[in-house]
Amino acid sequence: MVIAPNLESFTLGNGLQVVVIPDRRAPVVTHMIWYKVGSADEPEGQSGVAHFLEHLMFKGTSTYPDGAFSKMVAERGGQENAFTSADYTAYFQRVAKEHLPLMMKLEADRMENLVLTDEIVAPERDVVLEERRMRVDSEPGSRLREALNAITFVNHPYGSPVIGWQSEIEALNKDSAIAFYDRFYTPNNAVVVIAGDVDVEAVRKLAAETYGKIARRAEPGERIRPAEPPLAGERRIAVSDPRVRQETVSKTWIVPSQSTGAGRTPEALDVLAYILGEGPSSRLHKSLVLDREAAISAGAYYQGGALDNGRFGLYAAPRPGYTLEDMERLITIELRKLLDAGVSQEEVDRAQNSMIASAIYAQDSQSGLARLFGGALTTGQSIENVQSWPAQVNAVTPEDVLEVARSYLTGFPVTGELRIEVPSDPAATLTETSELKDKS
Amino acid sequence: MVIAPNLESFTLGNGLQVVVIPDRRAPVVTHMIWYKVGSADEPEGQSGVAHFLEHLMFKGTSTYPDGAFSKMVAERGGQENAFTSADYTAYFQRVAKEHLPLMMKLEADRMENLVLTDEIVAPERDVVLEERRMRVDSEPGSRLREALNAITFVNHPYGSPVIGWQSEIEALNKDSAIAFYDRFYTPNNAVVVIAGDVDVEAVRKLAAETYGKIARRAEPGERIRPAEPPLAGERRIAVSDPRVRQETVSKTWIVPSQSTGAGRTPEALDVLAYILGEGPSSRLHKSLVLDREAAISAGAYYQGGALDNGRFGLYAAPRPGYTLEDMERLITIELRKLLDAGVSQEEVDRAQNSMIASAIYAQDSQSGLARLFGGALTTGQSIENVQSWPAQVNAVTPEDVLEVARSYLTGFPVTGELRIEVPSDPAATLTETSELKDKS
Repeated sequence: MVIAPNLESFTLGNGLQVVVIPDRRAPVVTHMIWYKVGSADEPEGQSGVAHFLEHLMFKGTSTYPDGAFSKMVAERGGQENAFTSADYTAYFQRVAKEHLPLMMKLEADRMENLVLTDEIVAPERDVVLEERRMRVDSEPGSRLREALNAITFVNHPYGSPVIGWQSEIEALNKDSAIAFYDRFYTPNNAVVVIAGDVDVEAVRKLAAETYGKIARRAEPGERIRPAEPPLAGERRIAVSDPRVRQETVSKTWIVPSQSTGAGRTPEALDVLAYILGEGPSSRLHKSLVLDREAAISAGAYYQGGALDNGRFGLYAAPRPGYTLEDMERLITIELRKLLDAGVSQEEVDRAQNSMIASAIYAQDSQSGLARLFGGALTTGQSIENVQSWPAQVNAVTPEDVLEVARSYLTGFPVTGELRIEVPSDPAATLTETSELKDKS
Repeated sequence: MVIAPNLESFTLGNGLQVVVIPDRRAPVVTHMIWYKVGSADEPEGQSGVAHFLEHLMFKGTSTYPDGAFSKMVAERGGQENAFTSADYTAYFQRVAKEHLPLMMKLEADRMENLVLTDEIVAPERDVVLEERRMRVDSEPGSRLREALNAITFVNHPYGSPVIGWQSEIEALNKDSAIAFYDRFYTPNNAVVVIAGDVDVEAVRKLAAETYGKIARRAEPGERIRPAEPPLAGERRIAVSDPRVRQETVSKTWIVPSQSTGAGRTPEALDVLAYILGEGPSSRLHKSLVLDREAAISAGAYYQGGALDNGRFGLYAAPRPGYTLEDMERLITIELRKLLDAGVSQEEVDRAQNSMIASAIYAQDSQSGLARLFGGALTTGQSIENVQSWPAQVNAVTPEDVLEVARSYLTGFPVTGELRIEVPSDPAATLTETSELKDKS
């Protein structure tokens, strides 16, 4: 099978790529614009500016004042949103098909006519700081993810949080936002994805009349980020908080992504994650949750959607009576078994069938498809890469799976622990420790 | 007491600062030039360029070819060397006094007339790569320090090694070295320190004739580096290698430096380090090494010489029969005792006397004094800061020591473990682990 076989794509004279995925089942359309810029493209010391600009893009242009775009979407019964990742920033609207021309006009308008004033920027910075407090600082799991990330990528910018470090968010201002906008928000750095009840030729005409009128505003150039060096040992971070409801431990490795992996490496990592830890028949779930009854949950994941390298992770959450150390040991035993003995053809077949079935179901979602292609095209992949993914998955052999496991999961992992208790006071162990003296 | 009370300093019209420390005991002179640039000032992705340029500075100028400067020093029976840190790069010669004019002439020459060719740069890059292999990659202790550093400073450039990450050293070339040179090697970004059998007026005249002729080549501006964010948990890295001869564990915290610490904070941290872990009567040595006989060595240190924040560390190495976990517990018990009960006036007195006595002895070393002032002036301190350090130390009270301990050593430490054994295979614990099933 090929994903979205009726997809068409063209590029305007100013470099803007347009992807059209016709879907005539309902008279609605999803309109997205994806900029090839994310937090990993931020200037040093300005973490958070990509996400901050995403907020500010709703603040009005020389033509449409603050809030006008959103109001027009809402008045027409549409939905809109935006999101920022390490590699891209995207904006979308889902509206009745007759409103597509207006959406394209408004989105094109804010690519070049954004107007920011200190009066608008300063309160929005407070909004972002509050978002950080809510989403990161008050969530132990988020704080762990942020810290784990930071010690996993110590040199590559993937180590910085997308929302930004607090002290750097505080220093963002109108000038830093506009400088970022002028450098990266240009048609030759964007992909428009339109999925829904549309005709390709009509979209081509609309695109020429809206986005096509925008001059190339900048030449962002190649996206080269500092490489991540290998570190010499096993890294670990523990976040302890009484608000934690379920303790967990994860072990992660940096691995090739869909973009950096050669040949079938990314798909073999996908299959490996499935066999090890996705779904109820996975090895980790079966061993830790069902057979040993030691874990509440256990699994694996492969984060392959990245311009630079991705991540592979294994995790488990203990049942009462078991510790995180137990979980680590059990996870490592399952990994070791796989590294020693590989996987069976039956396991690979089952993974392939299930993964491809999921891809077929996913085609049912108009916005899901739009997001799939937008995300891929802004992280170094081509339309063909995405479309041929099922064929690539089907070509994976048990030998491929063993090879990627041995190549990428035998190095030092980075371990993250989420613990319920407040860190214990070591002085409480004084009595025990004083017995040490008799040991030697 | 005041350190180097006969020191004099002046600034040339081009912004170069000259510090003269007369010392007439022998007819020799130490001539140093300190540039206010180090690895923490490197462009993103070019780690190692400051140190690489230090190597290349010996490769000749338009006036004196490759090796000529070093040859002239050697022929005159002198010594020379150079070193790079996160905050500065320094070059020095120690020669008979009559050769000072020549040293100043040659050092001034290479501030503006460096000539690099690909033929010279490429082999020198191999030299640096070999230096990295020898000093870092083959030394488990160095690999631990590098990795510990990287997870301690995840955003601030102090997390990058001075020598550079291997992949980034490999990408350095003539252009990156010259760009760095042109940006930072300018008289207004340098301090010349001359200690020895010299007359201030004679030095003033010589400086005008040599360094004074160099135009301001650039305006490096304020040295603002990305701040280090607080992370939410305890970090840890373990390096295991069969070549390790002695296992050790250290716990470190980011603390104010001599430059960033307000009031007597840096000196109180100095006194705290002394009481906790410097010398044979320190608390850690007494408790872990002498009383409990659990450690081979144990101590504390304060790294206060930094433009941005410094580090405070506690460490211990176990005797046979004891583990790193034992060491951690014992270190933490001593720290906890201090945090609970503070330090005595007697301990502070003893620390002050010893620290000031050391400072007095240190004045005996001509190059040591030159290095003290050069290092201070390139990491944000003034001559007065250095000279009044003994008075500041003498003003520290037991309350000051307790306050800095409570302010800075109660946050999450970053722990580094150096272990002898190869990481154990968790599958070897299979039997033990399978007993887990009966636990709950």
